[in-house]
Amino acid sequence: MDNLTIALDAMSGDFGPRIVVPAAIQALNRYPNLSIFLVGNLTEISSFLSKENTKLIAQYQNDSRLILIESTTVITNDMKPSYAIRHSQGSSMRIALELVKENSAQACVSAGNTGALMGLSKLLLHSLTGIDRPALVATIPALNNQDTVVLDLGANAECDSDMLVQFAIMGEILAKTVLKIETPRVALLNIGEEDIKGLDKIRAAAAVLKSNDQINYIGYLEGNDLLTGKTDVLVCDGFVGNVTLKTVEGLIKIFMSSFKLSLNHNSFLMKLLSKWVQRKIAKNFCYLDPGRYNGACLLGLQSIVIKSHGSANQKSFFAAIEQAILAIQTNIPEKIATSLSSALPKSE
Amino acid sequence: MDNLTIALDAMSGDFGPRIVVPAAIQALNRYPNLSIFLVGNLTEISSFLSKENTKLIAQYQNDSRLILIESTTVITNDMKPSYAIRHSQGSSMRIALELVKENSAQACVSAGNTGALMGLSKLLLHSLTGIDRPALVATIPALNNQDTVVLDLGANAECDSDMLVQFAIMGEILAKTVLKIETPRVALLNIGEEDIKGLDKIRAAAAVLKSNDQINYIGYLEGNDLLTGKTDVLVCDGFVGNVTLKTVEGLIKIFMSSFKLSLNHNSFLMKLLSKWVQRKIAKNFCYLDPGRYNGACLLGLQSIVIKSHGSANQKSFFAAIEQAILAIQTNIPEKIATSLSSALPKSE
Repeated sequence: MDNLTIALDAMSGDFGPRIVVPAAIQALNRYPNLSIFLVGNLTEISSFLSKENTKLIAQYQNDSRLILIESTTVITNDMKPSYAIRHSQGSSMRIALELVKENSAQACVSAGNTGALMGLSKLLLHSLTGIDRPALVATIPALNNQDTVVLDLGANAECDSDMLVQFAIMGEILAKTVLKIETPRVALLNIGEEDIKGLDKIRAAAAVLKSNDQINYIGYLEGNDLLTGKTDVLVCDGFVGNVTLKTVEGLIKIFMSSFKLSLNHNSFLMKLLSKWVQRKIAKNFCYLDPGRYNGACLLGLQSIVIKSHGSANQKSFFAAIEQAILAIQTNIPEKIATSLSSALPKSE
Repeated sequence: MDNLTIALDAMSGDFGPRIVVPAAIQALNRYPNLSIFLVGNLTEISSFLSKENTKLIAQYQNDSRLILIESTTVITNDMKPSYAIRHSQGSSMRIALELVKENSAQACVSAGNTGALMGLSKLLLHSLTGIDRPALVATIPALNNQDTVVLDLGANAECDSDMLVQFAIMGEILAKTVLKIETPRVALLNIGEEDIKGLDKIRAAAAVLKSNDQINYIGYLEGNDLLTGKTDVLVCDGFVGNVTLKTVEGLIKIFMSSFKLSLNHNSFLMKLLSKWVQRKIAKNFCYLDPGRYNGACLLGLQSIVIKSHGSANQKSFFAAIEQAILAIQTNIPEKIATSLSSALPKSE
């Protein structure tokens, strides 16, 4: 197995090192060929360490599989991306991205400010030829054990039709390389299935995709088909994608908690029974657990950047690290770069 | 109890008279003070009637509680609204709306083409002073037995900040009059809770709402808070609202069906047990059943127009008729007209 090296922005997200550090240790334990750059405030990092983790960290540092790198500032969530980028020098996010830029790391994972991560990534790592702006993409579990590549999940609140077409092409390549689907179906998210429905930019993108022989464009899908597996790639702008994904996550949470309530009983037998049913159902729904598919890839860059959910816990930040590992192993940026030249409607 | 008169577009939606007619009979059975105009192709209507319903229809016609009105054309879902409106003469949707215009009916219910219904309603029934374009609004059940007024659910795919502010004001009045909330909380749907997040039009609307003393504006909410009851009114453009609502509906359907699967068993005892658990959980989740809250009100018109889901079955079309009854009884258009003049930021 080839060696893997990932840079982690340890100060990012709602919980910073409190969850990034244990997730990093979990990943080092799990993947013997993995090395990690942990970028953050070293005092803060060590203050969150359990005795056991302090020992493990020392051991991994000894083995040169863990390198701690001091950062001096943090880009917070309430910073405007333009401001954050201007003041990014010395921040954990920027240093982690620079490690990728200088080829010390193969991928960067951050749970920080999406706009800043997008802007800094574009600035430092550059977009692929033909891509105006990278998109956040994730593979969402759908019915019947299918998966759907959904993009943009929030990197670009405003998108024009060219960007939607580029997202469709990148999503298609991802479905081919990661999901191993020979001819992925590509759909646009819209508010009706008829040709005349929706926004101008969506209709314009549909016209381009229809005329592209290399794309298996199947038309519009509506919100209710998000998880039905009717398409392999679903394209939307970053605003709609973000709201939709978060709606799904919120609803699953509500469902799970109402479900627990509805099986709450006093008698011992009933409690036992409820537990059994709960386990059974949880097993059936676990594929929908947002934590399991945390980690959206910033697709369209020359390198790999994974955005974790800001509210990620240890388990889901670990899932984001695993996304980075998968992206390195499948060599996504290169595959997309190779395919883009032929797939894009015109050289730009 | 005052008499209620409603005009139904019997040819609308995916199933037309097949579901509209039995839903109409159900409503007449249920509400003794209700009269209905049923507008449609009379041959087609009678072809779908069971023996019992034929008898009931004759009886209600006899009592003058049901009047059948012949229409000659149908506005289909794939028609561009502008085309549909130009060719609307003699259509079931237009005739139903004209019955409201001439004060023969107090409300119209249609499951037809949203854009055409919106355009024709505006043309025939006019918007209230100060409202640029009506919005589709529905009351969505949230956690803890709360309800949230959500708009726009799809009448306006593109909205500017003025429209978002008008939606907020109309939603607030609806929450006051229908949900009986004294000082409703009003939020904008966005992709982050920080002030700098989202689209220009949302930030502009936020600035106006913040400076309006009469509105209890609480800021941005994200998709995951759609059903948590954190706000009484949630405002978004019609594209996002439609995708989000359909995503919720789709997910609930998936949940319910996966749930049935996960409790599928061979043994008799297990089957019995599964049934029991299923009933218990269904009871807990029934508040989320999209069929129960079918019927979005086209808010901002001088009269009452209710849009049913295109794929409504009898039960949910009946729910849409009940929405119309509630809107008549609470006299929504007049309440909004009265409150608008003082609530709107400036006379327009």
